[in-house]
Amino acid sequence: MEKFGPVRVGLLGIGTIGRGTFEVLARNREEITRRAGRSIAITRVADLDVERAREIVGDQARVCADAAEIVSDPDIDVVIELIGGYTVAKDLVLAAIANGKHVVTANKAMLAVHGNRIFAEASKQGVMVAFEAAVAGGIPIIKAIREGLAANRIQRVAGIINGTTNFVLSEMRDKGIGFEEALAQAQALGYAEADPTFDVEGVDAAHKITLLASLAFGVPIQYDKCHVEGISKLSNCDVRYAGQLGYRIKLLGIATRRDPQEGGPAGIELRVHPTLVPERRLLANVEGAMNAVWVRGDAVGDTIYYGQGAGAEPTASAVIADLVDVARMITVDPYNRVPHLAFQPDALADVPILPIEQARSAAYLRIRVADQPGVLARITGHLADAGISIDAALQKLSEDDGQTDVILLTHVSEESRIVSAIEAIQAMPTVLGEVVRIRREELD
Amino acid sequence: MEKFGPVRVGLLGIGTIGRGTFEVLARNREEITRRAGRSIAITRVADLDVERAREIVGDQARVCADAAEIVSDPDIDVVIELIGGYTVAKDLVLAAIANGKHVVTANKAMLAVHGNRIFAEASKQGVMVAFEAAVAGGIPIIKAIREGLAANRIQRVAGIINGTTNFVLSEMRDKGIGFEEALAQAQALGYAEADPTFDVEGVDAAHKITLLASLAFGVPIQYDKCHVEGISKLSNCDVRYAGQLGYRIKLLGIATRRDPQEGGPAGIELRVHPTLVPERRLLANVEGAMNAVWVRGDAVGDTIYYGQGAGAEPTASAVIADLVDVARMITVDPYNRVPHLAFQPDALADVPILPIEQARSAAYLRIRVADQPGVLARITGHLADAGISIDAALQKLSEDDGQTDVILLTHVSEESRIVSAIEAIQAMPTVLGEVVRIRREELD
Repeated sequence: MEKFGPVRVGLLGIGTIGRGTFEVLARNREEITRRAGRSIAITRVADLDVERAREIVGDQARVCADAAEIVSDPDIDVVIELIGGYTVAKDLVLAAIANGKHVVTANKAMLAVHGNRIFAEASKQGVMVAFEAAVAGGIPIIKAIREGLAANRIQRVAGIINGTTNFVLSEMRDKGIGFEEALAQAQALGYAEADPTFDVEGVDAAHKITLLASLAFGVPIQYDKCHVEGISKLSNCDVRYAGQLGYRIKLLGIATRRDPQEGGPAGIELRVHPTLVPERRLLANVEGAMNAVWVRGDAVGDTIYYGQGAGAEPTASAVIADLVDVARMITVDPYNRVPHLAFQPDALADVPILPIEQARSAAYLRIRVADQPGVLARITGHLADAGISIDAALQKLSEDDGQTDVILLTHVSEESRIVSAIEAIQAMPTVLGEVVRIRREELD
Repeated sequence: MEKFGPVRVGLLGIGTIGRGTFEVLARNREEITRRAGRSIAITRVADLDVERAREIVGDQARVCADAAEIVSDPDIDVVIELIGGYTVAKDLVLAAIANGKHVVTANKAMLAVHGNRIFAEASKQGVMVAFEAAVAGGIPIIKAIREGLAANRIQRVAGIINGTTNFVLSEMRDKGIGFEEALAQAQALGYAEADPTFDVEGVDAAHKITLLASLAFGVPIQYDKCHVEGISKLSNCDVRYAGQLGYRIKLLGIATRRDPQEGGPAGIELRVHPTLVPERRLLANVEGAMNAVWVRGDAVGDTIYYGQGAGAEPTASAVIADLVDVARMITVDPYNRVPHLAFQPDALADVPILPIEQARSAAYLRIRVADQPGVLARITGHLADAGISIDAALQKLSEDDGQTDVILLTHVSEESRIVSAIEAIQAMPTVLGEVVRIRREELD
């Protein structure tokens, strides 16, 4: 299938996300190659902890301590920057661009502060600087705004884009505890760093909403103009009062276009602060360390994008999506860089679509019965005979006609088993109407 | 700015969605051009109702009755197919492809049945057939699965991908009414067609989940193997019992990868049926005609994409996103087809970021007061002086220390007004602690 050699990638920094990226690329090599049309291989890794890096990559990649070696290596096509911070990372990214390499980065701090210069240099050199992993982890929100909503005049973007603070706020509400206690729990569980300032004071969310505002409204990156308030001064009684009024408090990054016809000054509002959100909104129901971004466009209306905003593999998912974008862009025929069906036409699989008899699902059963002793025992007996166990049961006098309904929730079983159990139940003389079966999915 | 002439588009069928596409393209012409790097113009329209078509497009496009003229016109770069159905549409799309034109279509029925052939021809001719509008309206779900989640071994896709049935099910639950009555309401409100068979029997959802399954798992399109059950036999008592057990009933399209290690047969389950979903899941809380798709990947975990799944402008949003993809693909420098900041570098706007004093927001205020007569009157007086009106008020004995808290929700006002009102309130001798202000956003 492969007409081209692998895309050769140099990885700068193999901490949590770097390791996740390396491991997901290795685990899903076949799947990713079928999509990208060629394989993607991390051939070089730079990390100050050379020993640890060697333990992770084995003989799959050459390891060195000096990242500068990699950004100037003529055998490297793409550089992944996962060092973080504003200074060293920026210098390495600019050097990689100057050497004609494409760059993939998860570094929102660097882009919020130096992005205008970095993107200008990249455009001059004709290389891509991809940064899906910089905002909302694995959620493809940059692609959604930049490409998926390209038809729209975007009016507003509001997001839960920092998992640490959302976890702390969820704990404060659920457990009725104060900020300090909730933060300590988040730290104990690994959701907050030892020095949590960047997260809890809103700086991280501000980096991200600044980038999203540029994508949404077509303005240069202006992090210094973002209004930033964190959650550290939030008192539990306000969380409680908000709840009594039908609201939840979330740390939102909000970017809003203000048009002249609204009466006030025209421009863009850019802010991060604790915000009361009505509890009926989906955004208010995003709990724990999850992220979600709400985007309103004039044509599309309201859209929401939800998922894990941090963590090794969700972030790796975004890093690798960017690598696949680069691989597709620099390879194969120009008009089919993204294959119609996601996978290259010659890489479609012949995995069978299973007949419904082999599908597996839990079930809701409603059985209308004559109210005689032993009916439930016989029904559950038929289910047991088919190897189906029961999750919950409810016996009700039907409100419609006063007959008795037996409602059962079963555990997951193969379709053919539940069908034969239903046939047996249906044949019971004490079963009055047709047995109703509706499938059930826990989605967990 | 423009180095190239407009992308010339021929539109086949100017019904509801065609009209929406024409109008959004016209309304957002500047914004779209800034993103795409060149303008996109519908220069020809084919519709059997030539009169009506002329009324819509005026002198902006040439109108004819015969779509065959457009698919062979050498001056057309891209054809939008919005005729619908399996036969005429398919022949026109194949003719357009044969003539080297890129195609954008919203026609899920055609693609579910003839997609394999259409995509094969397109690949042979080196043209794109883009179909974001075919699934879930304005939600960029195809782009998310095909590109955004390219790193993942996708395990499951489950979606509310038919707005009509979701509206009917929401009505059945909210109002405690039966299927027939809810359907009649949907028809009266324009959410269901006069002949609703395709929607209520699950056929439309089956077309869509079949396409999503191919994108997720890299298998050919196999609509004939999809198991399809609609909602027309659903009884209201089951909706009610499900609610009592903590579930909501949704019509889901579900595509699941079954791996050998799970014990059963390996393959892909592909099915549409009413499904009990736990009410705590976000998917269970998608109400009315909204759509949402849940995707689980091995690296990214669970992600959800939510928005309007139908309607003129949401669908037009997806059609035009595809047009922008095509325009970016056939234009400008190869490595920067999608500009870093969504808009072309020379098209960034100098719209100002407003200072926080000019931001507009509603507020939650908590004011700790000495419990004396007239305090609330003086507080609300200060707010009225600043031109701020009050939405809700709550007076509480604080659970923490027995003092009295006055909680006010204000309507939207400019930041500077609320700040000056807070200063005045803070200066009152009866106000004991610091006034707490948290901003509030209704997100509506």
